[in-house]
Amino acid sequence: MSAMKLCRFNDDRLGVVRGGMVHDVTAALDVLPTMRWPLPHGDAFIAHLDAVRERADALVDEAKTHPLESVRLLSPVANPSKIIGAPVNYAAHKDEIDENIAHGHAIKPISEWGLFLKSNTSLVGASQGVERRFPDQRNDHEVELAVVIGRQGDRIPYADAMSYIAGYAIGLDMTLRGPQFQSFRKSIDTYSVLGPWLVTADELTDPSDLELRIGVNGDLRQQSRTRMLICDVPRLIEYASSFYTLYPGDIIMTGTPDGVGPVVGGDMMEATIEGVGTMRVAVRDA
Amino acid sequence: MSAMKLCRFNDDRLGVVRGGMVHDVTAALDVLPTMRWPLPHGDAFIAHLDAVRERADALVDEAKTHPLESVRLLSPVANPSKIIGAPVNYAAHKDEIDENIAHGHAIKPISEWGLFLKSNTSLVGASQGVERRFPDQRNDHEVELAVVIGRQGDRIPYADAMSYIAGYAIGLDMTLRGPQFQSFRKSIDTYSVLGPWLVTADELTDPSDLELRIGVNGDLRQQSRTRMLICDVPRLIEYASSFYTLYPGDIIMTGTPDGVGPVVGGDMMEATIEGVGTMRVAVRDA
Repeated sequence: MSAMKLCRFNDDRLGVVRGGMVHDVTAALDVLPTMRWPLPHGDAFIAHLDAVRERADALVDEAKTHPLESVRLLSPVANPSKIIGAPVNYAAHKDEIDENIAHGHAIKPISEWGLFLKSNTSLVGASQGVERRFPDQRNDHEVELAVVIGRQGDRIPYADAMSYIAGYAIGLDMTLRGPQFQSFRKSIDTYSVLGPWLVTADELTDPSDLELRIGVNGDLRQQSRTRMLICDVPRLIEYASSFYTLYPGDIIMTGTPDGVGPVVGGDMMEATIEGVGTMRVAVRDA
Repeated sequence: MSAMKLCRFNDDRLGVVRGGMVHDVTAALDVLPTMRWPLPHGDAFIAHLDAVRERADALVDEAKTHPLESVRLLSPVANPSKIIGAPVNYAAHKDEIDENIAHGHAIKPISEWGLFLKSNTSLVGASQGVERRFPDQRNDHEVELAVVIGRQGDRIPYADAMSYIAGYAIGLDMTLRGPQFQSFRKSIDTYSVLGPWLVTADELTDPSDLELRIGVNGDLRQQSRTRMLICDVPRLIEYASSFYTLYPGDIIMTGTPDGVGPVVGGDMMEATIEGVGTMRVAVRDA
C-alpha cells in the first residue's frame, strides 16, 4: 500500500489528498461493517484502516477529484472511544500557566498529574470551526500534534508504542481559561479540532522532531518542535495505556508549546505541522 | 407503555425485570437501526428507547424467563458519548478528602470546579466486576445515583431538566486515590459500573430523596439520601449542558456521600438505591 493522507469531507465522503487535490474514494468505505447496538469500542474507519486503504489504492487513480479549497473538511476520526490530553508537556509552556496556581491547581509534571480527557462530543473538523461558548471569558488556542491510535492495546511497552499508531493530524485543544477541571472546560462543543486529514504512520514515520505552529489572523502565536516534548509520543502511549486500554481511533493530543493566547469571534486560526499539512479554522461566537 | 426495569444480560440480550425474574425481550431490539461509520453521538438503545419499550411491552407476557440470579448483568447503556462525574456533591464527603489538598488540589464547590469525565472504556455492568489496576495503591468504592440522559439537549433550563432523563441506575465511581486528574484515575478499565438495570423515569419519577448505600463483605460503608446532594439532579443537567451538548445515553454520576473506603481483591460490594434495586459487584486484582 502507498502511504496516504486521508480526509473525510463534505457529507462524510472519503478522500485521498495529493498535492492540492482531493481524490474521492468514498467507495472504499464499502469495506466497513454494518453494526447494531451494542457497538464495540473504537472508530470503525480506523479499526479497518488497512482494508479501506487497500480499496482506496485501487480506486484513487480513476477517482473524481476536487480542488482542496472547495471541500469541507471534517474530522478524519468520527467515533473515538477517548480523546486524551497531555497537560504541560512543553517546558516553555509551564511558565505561562502560573496563573492556575491562583485557582488552587499547583503545576505538576505529567508523571504526577496524569493525562486528562476531552469529551468525544467536542470533536470537529477544520471546516466546522470553533464556537466560543462563553465569549466574555478568555478562550485560548493550543496547537498540538495529535496521535491516532491504530489498534487495541493495554499496558503497551515504550519499545512497542510506535507500532500502535495509525497516523497523525493537527489537534487544536481549545481551552476555556478558568478554575474548572480540564475535562470540563476543554470539552465544550467544537473545542477539539482534528485535521486537516490523517497522515498515515507509514508516510510520517518519525514524529520526534516536527515543527508545529499556529497563527491568528496572520500573526504567529505558537511555534516549536516536537523534540521539545517533555513526554515524547511513545512515552505518552505507554503512560496512557498503563491506566486504560487504548482502542483504534483514540486520539492523544500531545500537549501545546508556549505562546497560547486568546481568540475571539471572527478570528481565523491557521495551524501547520511539518509532514502533516496546514488547516485553517474559523472562530465564531455563540 | 408500562414503566419498566430493563436489563442487558448474557450475550447482549434485553430483559424486563419483574420481581426476581428476567423476561427475555431481545426481539424488541429489532427496532434498532443498523449503522455504519460515521456514527451519530449517543447510545442507540437509549435513543430509541420508546420504540424498544413499545415492542417489549408486546413481548413481555409471552417471553421466556430466567431467574435473576442466573443471568450475567451488563451495563444497560453500552455506548454513552460521555460519562460525567460530579466531585464533592455531598457535604459530608468534603471532610474526608482533605488529603487531596496535600496533592495541590484545593477543595472547591462544583460551581467553581465544574464536572469531570470518566472514560467510556471504563464502563462495565455488575457481573463484570472491578479489576484493581494498581493493587498496591488505595482503590475506593463510591456509590452514586446515576442519571441516564434520554434525548439530546443543549443549555437545558433547570425547569425542563427532568424531561431529559431516560432513567436511573446505580453507579459505582471506582477511584484510584492519588494526585492525578479525576479523568485519569477514575477512567481505568472497569472503574465505572452501571447497573443492575435501567429504571425508566416513568417508574422512578422522583429522584430527590432516595436512600443509597453500599456495603463491602456485609459491612455497611456508605449510607445517605439523595436529598443531601449539594447540586440536585436537575441542577447537574442544567450545569453540564451549559458547557456541552448532552446526548441519549450520556451518564451523569451524581456524586458520592461520605464513607468512601478501600476495596481489595476478593471483596464483594453490594450497592442499593431505593426505587432502583441492588447489585453485587466483585473486586479482583489485576
